[in-house]
Amino acid sequence: MARRKKRERQAALLDLLEREPFLTDEELAARFDVSIQTIRLDRLTLGIPELRERIRALATRKNDDLRSLSETEVIGQLIEVNLGEMAISILDIGPEHVFSKTKIARGHHMFAQANSLAVAVIDAEVVLTAVAEIRFIRPVQLGERLVCKAVVTSNKRERAHVKVTTKAGADIVFEGAFTVVKVQQENARGWEETNFETGD
Amino acid sequence: MARRKKRERQAALLDLLEREPFLTDEELAARFDVSIQTIRLDRLTLGIPELRERIRALATRKNDDLRSLSETEVIGQLIEVNLGEMAISILDIGPEHVFSKTKIARGHHMFAQANSLAVAVIDAEVVLTAVAEIRFIRPVQLGERLVCKAVVTSNKRERAHVKVTTKAGADIVFEGAFTVVKVQQENARGWEETNFETGD
Repeated sequence: MARRKKRERQAALLDLLEREPFLTDEELAARFDVSIQTIRLDRLTLGIPELRERIRALATRKNDDLRSLSETEVIGQLIEVNLGEMAISILDIGPEHVFSKTKIARGHHMFAQANSLAVAVIDAEVVLTAVAEIRFIRPVQLGERLVCKAVVTSNKRERAHVKVTTKAGADIVFEGAFTVVKVQQENARGWEETNFETGD
Repeated sequence: MARRKKRERQAALLDLLEREPFLTDEELAARFDVSIQTIRLDRLTLGIPELRERIRALATRKNDDLRSLSETEVIGQLIEVNLGEMAISILDIGPEHVFSKTKIARGHHMFAQANSLAVAVIDAEVVLTAVAEIRFIRPVQLGERLVCKAVVTSNKRERAHVKVTTKAGADIVFEGAFTVVKVQQENARGWEETNFETGD
């Protein structure tokens, strides 16, 4: 992106953060091809809090308490949840998440973020994943921030479908289509009772 | 299974352990509807070592060293590996693997065992998962032992397909079809260079 005049850049910055509120100052600087100091000054001028504060503010948008999981069982930090509709979490890829050889994030951590969010978004006491079709679209590097969004696409009495999209910056890095089943807690040991193969 | 005469039971025991070498004495006792002590006596009579020893013996069947992962990066204990062909690992489901509410194993641990084995079995330096279609067939309880087998079903220059089946005792509990890509290490940051969407 070419350099822009200050006023134009600040308007674009506001607009971009509305769409992608989890961008770091480093990522913003790269997007606008300016220094991190310039971004910080822009934020100060515009009254935009730093990322940590923005995340905290977003966290207050949680409209619902979780039912199927405790909040600590969600992999990543839960940012927003409307049970039965959608949920968002973020996961910062640290050294514990990457392959030693390549520093690329291991697939099961990205799966864990997506799968736990697909379960958490469902409004039932016990929810288990039945089927998932997942796609890793590009490798994620150490230090990247994954913003994961789960949207409930169908929700019947015994099962639901959830579409999950994970982004790093502006890039979609992971997509998953999850089918989850709602199990009566007393039946959780008797999975066979759930008619599992004949879907909706 | 009805009680059998000792000689008949011991023959069946040998046969069963040939097919399912990871059964515990408890599971064997339940299968034959006898006490654990009876199974221990049968093993003694037949010269069958205890499970821990059987696993150790199987571990020596590893014909190949891993290339894409270090052995500690495989989730579970690696039991057998023939690079480019098949691999087996076991994972004992402990308290750290289950939901607090239901004591059912969390899906991402089963995915991690399967995914890491699908990557480990490939004979290339850097291997990444591209696509996975997975199915959780029945819930796995705290204390169950998961035996995961990965079989390479096709293996081309840039990508391979791996079928993974996980059993608890005699039950298949998880199935997955993985498409993995082999990346030149210097290209690992330039995933886009791998033609990812157009198949093999």
